[in-house]
Parts: sequence; structure tokens; C-alpha cells
Amino acid sequence: MADEQEPWELLQKMIAEGQALKLDQYLEGMSAMETVYAVSRLSEDEQSQLLTLIKPEAAAVLIEEVTESQAVDLIDHLSPEQAAHIVDELPSDQQADILGALDASDAEAIMDEMEPAEAADVRELLQYPTDTAGGVMITEYLAYSDEMTIAGVLDDMRENRETYAHYDVQYGYVISHSGALAGVLRLRDLLLAPRKDSLMSLMIPNPISVPVDMSLDDLHGVFDTYAFLGVPVVDAESRLVGVAQRAAVDRAVGKQTEEVYLKTSGIVGGEELRNMGFLSRASRRLSWLSINIVLNIVAASVIAFYQDTLSAVIVLAVFLPIISDMSGCSGNQAVAVSIRELTLGLIKPRDVFRVFSKEAVVGLMNGAVLGVLLGGVAWVWQDNMYLGLVVGGALMVNTLLAVSLGGLIPLALRGMKMDPALASGPLLTTVTDMCGFFFVLGFASLMLEKLVP
Amino acid sequence: MADEQEPWELLQKMIAEGQALKLDQYLEGMSAMETVYAVSRLSEDEQSQLLTLIKPEAAAVLIEEVTESQAVDLIDHLSPEQAAHIVDELPSDQQADILGALDASDAEAIMDEMEPAEAADVRELLQYPTDTAGGVMITEYLAYSDEMTIAGVLDDMRENRETYAHYDVQYGYVISHSGALAGVLRLRDLLLAPRKDSLMSLMIPNPISVPVDMSLDDLHGVFDTYAFLGVPVVDAESRLVGVAQRAAVDRAVGKQTEEVYLKTSGIVGGEELRNMGFLSRASRRLSWLSINIVLNIVAASVIAFYQDTLSAVIVLAVFLPIISDMSGCSGNQAVAVSIRELTLGLIKPRDVFRVFSKEAVVGLMNGAVLGVLLGGVAWVWQDNMYLGLVVGGALMVNTLLAVSLGGLIPLALRGMKMDPALASGPLLTTVTDMCGFFFVLGFASLMLEKLVP
Repeated sequence: MADEQEPWELLQKMIAEGQALKLDQYLEGMSAMETVYAVSRLSEDEQSQLLTLIKPEAAAVLIEEVTESQAVDLIDHLSPEQAAHIVDELPSDQQADILGALDASDAEAIMDEMEPAEAADVRELLQYPTDTAGGVMITEYLAYSDEMTIAGVLDDMRENRETYAHYDVQYGYVISHSGALAGVLRLRDLLLAPRKDSLMSLMIPNPISVPVDMSLDDLHGVFDTYAFLGVPVVDAESRLVGVAQRAAVDRAVGKQTEEVYLKTSGIVGGEELRNMGFLSRASRRLSWLSINIVLNIVAASVIAFYQDTLSAVIVLAVFLPIISDMSGCSGNQAVAVSIRELTLGLIKPRDVFRVFSKEAVVGLMNGAVLGVLLGGVAWVWQDNMYLGLVVGGALMVNTLLAVSLGGLIPLALRGMKMDPALASGPLLTTVTDMCGFFFVLGFASLMLEKLVP
Repeated sequence: MADEQEPWELLQKMIAEGQALKLDQYLEGMSAMETVYAVSRLSEDEQSQLLTLIKPEAAAVLIEEVTESQAVDLIDHLSPEQAAHIVDELPSDQQADILGALDASDAEAIMDEMEPAEAADVRELLQYPTDTAGGVMITEYLAYSDEMTIAGVLDDMRENRETYAHYDVQYGYVISHSGALAGVLRLRDLLLAPRKDSLMSLMIPNPISVPVDMSLDDLHGVFDTYAFLGVPVVDAESRLVGVAQRAAVDRAVGKQTEEVYLKTSGIVGGEELRNMGFLSRASRRLSWLSINIVLNIVAASVIAFYQDTLSAVIVLAVFLPIISDMSGCSGNQAVAVSIRELTLGLIKPRDVFRVFSKEAVVGLMNGAVLGVLLGGVAWVWQDNMYLGLVVGGALMVNTLLAVSLGGLIPLALRGMKMDPALASGPLLTTVTDMCGFFFVLGFASLMLEKLVP
């Protein structure tokens, strides 16, 4: 075991020895998962040396394999000139993703060193928000004038074979005299048609296209509706500006799902990796925690209000955190289902009654079971049936409340155009904590003489 | 407002009137998101009538648009014969997904009514676990003998144009005499080569292929490494059995991410939609809650142990739920980051020291800030500095513990081949609740005389 060297240790050695050729070969044999892990183990200096030692093409492959935040870090630590050589080799959507994540001045310095045509493309892509069609599209596509023949297209493809080999080409696009998108060519149709035919006769006219500012959600809907691998993106004048690919949209939507998960766990901004700076990690987590502690203090003030009741029946203090925690758990299950159904399009903010009626029965049943369980424990432990009634009754009522509210809060937040993932949890637990404490201590106050030992 | 009819109300009306043609047209104009929502609003009877009224091809499009659990329900409520007509029109991977989710006997009844060739394909796909290459691959692909010429392939494509139109064809595959996969054809290369050339001369020999039992994670790695849109899947004898598509793998991985999110919120089984039966929804949620309540009771028993201290300083009861809740929040942030980094391949179970050192500093800093905050509130409220020290100190120490543990628990669970998403949260909060109660009440016991008012 101790003799066997980890891939990243081998990389370290080759970097230290400056063995460029060996590095090229070794990296080629590594899977993406291995590369991700190995790169994360190298120091910043080693990473920079690695990228400058290997060929720009190999460096670009490496950049495509690692995670996006790793890629941004790697490029960030190179000189603008070195970075430009590598970025030149990336597909346009990834160029835009990486340069868009850098400081504007760093990105500018790299684009100044890039090939002018590549730089112009990426500058244009950088204009579009990342959650729109413009933000995910690529600019590498085949476009031909509608006056061409099939022979002309085939000749162009043959001549530019080298260039197009890097394209992810599924369709060709036909452009009219005015510059507007006129039709789509399927490559397999080109295979079968007579060479002398016009493109007009072969193309699918009036193709589906999407505006450059279409939202990612709507674009996802388009790919759900049609079996296309790519869809042309047009500007306000119907001119073709890029192609949005199904895979890029799926990736972007997957990233959103992941962000929802991280946000519900209180990772503000939807992204944190441990290679980020300690201060930014700690302070971003803290921004969410400090709102939570204020809400917690507000909720716990209910306990202070009932201090006398609690003094008289000190054993209730054991049950307060249980009720607070269990209501939070039950409510958060309902929150997760509502957020998921909102994402899938199965519910809309106005479906308040439907969600309430579905959640209330679950809250009633699970509240009853959990209430009987906890009430039973309290009764047996203190040999006092009334304590069981107070504790069990409070958990029962509060579970019903937590589950119903948990289902509804995401709808309300979405209805107010707010992000349900980040705010639903804290809002829910504040209300259910307050109500839980109020039910336990309020019920106990009502039958205090039966509870005092 | 009241006059405007919702799309699903219009559908209801057309179904009631049996207007098959109008339904076909209306559905075609609806986006996938609209269809998902409208179908969820129809009764089971109306859904079945809708699917039998429209053409099988249109029904198949509808099945592809709605969510997977909706699709399974829709098919489940039809007669085997009606279901078979629709399933026949679906791509093979979706056939397998839907039939695999049905009861075995229901699926069998449908396959008996399907076209024999389609049924044979889907029976084979159903053998493979859903999280392997076999589980996501399609069986619609173009395969040609290595003895054929390009002219032969082009002739076959022209003859079977109708059939292949439904295929999602990116590549052709070349099969050797022994039945093994010999090479891959890029369609665009077919475009440019002389017709009389042999396939052997045009194909890319020794292509990358994946074994049918490759895990989804590894398959995802393959697509990360190579820019392929599809990769051939082979059995133990190197025979081609299907094609795994990038889009299908991205979808399957997206589904896994979603399940992680739902599981961390206590949705056992990773899936719940409100159209599922009330009893199964309530009982699945309850199975997780009942483990949690037991863990909660265990944790709260620490409070019972310190009852005397609590009686003497009743105001401590206000701070117990705050400390329990805040430690849970801080720890769960670290859990979320570890689960994410495990998924991305940035950490492995053995990286205990690395994760601990990264989390401990965050825990130390955020614990200090939150401790000072809560300690300050306690001090000012009760005008007792020692109360501030006890409460603030306990939160500080417990936050450090919760954050460090939160980072490590997912590693430990993954190392033991268990699912970190479902178990990390309950495990973490049990330990941090116990320790939090212990720190507050233990510290208080030590300086009891300074705290008693």
C-alpha cells in the first residue's frame, strides 16, 4: 500500500521534473473523475506549472474535465497570454462560462491575447445572462446562404473538415438574403439528396427557433416538447446568433437543482467548495446562520413568557427541544415536496387549497402517530397521564400545523417571486417553534394543578 | 378572469364530448410544462379516456412530455392492449423505464400485447439495473457488417428512412464476423467518402465502448472525458447490445441529484408526489420521522439528567432549543458541502484529515461569532455575565463540534457503503443535540452559584 503512488503524486513528480511529454500521455489515460481529484490535490503553483508544461490542446481537455470552479481557478492563476492560448481551444459556451466567472479586468486581459475571432464571439456571449438561451448557446455552427446548392455545402464541409471536426454539429442552418434564419438542414438528409438540388428544397422551412433572451426554464420546456438535440437561437431581428444544445441545457438545469439542495441546507449563493478561501466560506455560511439565530431567539422568547409554568413542571423542558425539532422535520418534508412539484410544474402558487388538503391529512395522521408515541413516553416516564396529554397533544397539533405550512410556504414565496429554497426552512421553523412552545406551555398552564408532582 | 377557461378545463370538455381530432390538435399546441400541469388536474377516468381517444403516436408524445411518475400512472390505468399500442411508440429506454416501474404482472400483460420485436428489446433492457449502462441505453441503433461498402450502407439508410427517422442516430456501428463491435462510423464521414470504399476503411477502429454493467457514475465520467453524444454498450463477449446517450445519462444523474435533496429532507425512497396515495405518502414520511423521534428522545434525556441545575436556573430552558437548532443548522451546511464534494469526486472517504482541517477553522470562526452574539443576548437580558459565558461558550464549542462532525459524517457513511443523504442529518443532530445540552447544563452546574438569581 505504502509503495503505491497516487496518480496525483506521480503528476507532482513529473511536474517537478518538467516532463512535458510524459504528462501529456499520463493525463490522456486518466478518467475525468481521477483528473478532478488529482488536480484538487496539487498546489496552486503545481497546477500552473502543469498547464504551462502540456500543450494548449491537452490543457483545454483538462479544463473541460475538471469542475467549473476548478477550471476558473486554474485559468485565474495563469498569465493572460498563457490563459488565452488554452481558452482559444475551448468551445464558445465554456469560454464564456469561465471568462464570465473571472474578474472583469482579468477576463479583459485574457480576451486581448486571444485570437480576434474567438475573442469577438466570447465577448458577444458574455452579454447574455447565464440563465437565458444566450447564456448557454454555442457560436460554432454551420450556416449557409439559401441560394446555395447541396453540392456547394458538401464542398464547404469537405474543405473545412479540420475546423468543423471540433464542432458539435447536428444540423446545418440556412440563412436568407435578409440575414434571417430560413431553415434547418438535417445532416442525414444531406447524405441522401442529389447533389444538384437547392438547399431551399432540402431544408425544413420555418424551423422552431428561440429568442436569445428566453429563460432557461422555457428552453428546458422546448427540449421536453421536441426531440431536437439543438435549437437555433435568434435575436430580435430573427438573425441566427447561436445554437442552444440539449446537453448544455440539461447541464444548466442540473446545476440549478444542485443549487436548490445547497440553498435549503443554508449554503447561500448556491455554491461552496472547500478550495474556496476560508473567510468567504465562513462568512457566507454565517450570513444565513445569523438570520437564523435571530429567528431562533424570537421563537424561544415564548418559553421565557411561560417561565413560571416551566418552573412548576421542570420536566417539560425535556420535551421543548423534541417538539421543536420534530415539527421542523415534518414540515421540511412537505417543503421539499412542494419545491420539487413547483420545479416539475405540477403545482402553481395559486394551488393553495389543493396543497393544503393533500398535506393536512398527512399532517393529521403523522401528528397523531408521533403525538401518541411522545405522549406515551411522557406518561410512562413521569407516571402522569396529563403530562402525556399535554406533550402528545401539543406535538399532534403542531405537526398538523408544520406539515400544512411546510406545503404552503414555498407556494407563497414563489407567488411573491422569491426563492423558496433559501427562505422556506427558516420561516417554517420559526413559526412552528413558536407555536410548538406555545402549545406545550399553554396546555400545561391550563391544567397546571394536574401536572405539579 | 372567471370567464377564461384553463387548458385543463378545455381538455375536460373535449374528453367529455369525445372530440378526438380536436384533442390531437389542442395537445400538439401545448408546451410540455402546460401538459404536465393539465394532466395532473384530470381525474383518473379522464386521463384514461384522453389516452384512448387520441392516436397512439400522440399519446406517446404526451407520455414523453409528462413526468415519469405521471407516465407510469397513466399507463397503469389503461387496459394492457391500449397500453401496448402506446408503449410500442416510445423509445426503448423509456419503454423500459415505464414497464420497470409497473408491477411485474402488469408489465408482463402489456409486453404480451406489444409488437414481438419491441417486446423482446424491452425484456432485455429490463434485466439491467437502472443505475448501470444497460439501464439507460437504447436499442435503436444502426449496425452494419464490416464486409459492407459505403454504398451498401447508404442504400440501407435510404430504404429504411421511415424507420430510422424515429431513431436518435448520431453514429453507425460496424460489427465484425464474430459479432464483436469493430468500429464506429461518423455520419458526417459517410457524407464525404467515395461510395465504393469499404466500411473498414472509413470506420474509426477499436472504438471506446463501455460494459453493460458499468455504473452510472463511471458512465458519467466517460462522457465527461470524451465529447461523444453516445457510446456503444457491449456485453461480456464484446457484442454490441445498445447505445448509451449523453442526454439519457445527464437525465439519470439529474434524477440522482434530486433524490439526494429529497432524502436529506427526509423523503425516504427519494420520490414523493402528491398524486400518490395518502397512506403511502404518510407512512413513508413517518418511517423517517419515527427514527428521528427516538433519536430526539435519547438526546433530550441529557436534559432530564440535569433537571436540578435547570430548576435552579430556569432561564436556561430558553436557550436549549436555540443551541440545538443552531448547531443543527451549522452542521448541516458542512454536510451539504461534503455530499456535494463526494458527488463531484473532489473528496474521498479517506480524506478525513483534509476535511476536518478545512471545517474546523470555519466552525471555530462561526462558533465564535454566534457564541458572542447569543452570549451577549443572555448577559444583557438577565444582567448576568456568567449566564452569557455559559450560553455563549456552549454554543461556541458545540458549533465547532457540529461543523467538524457535519463535514466528516458523510465521508464515514460513504466509506461504509451507506447512503450519506438519508442518514447524515439525523445522526449529526442527535450527537450535536446531546453535546449541546451537555455543554450548557454542564457548564452551568460548574458555576451554579454565580447563576442563581
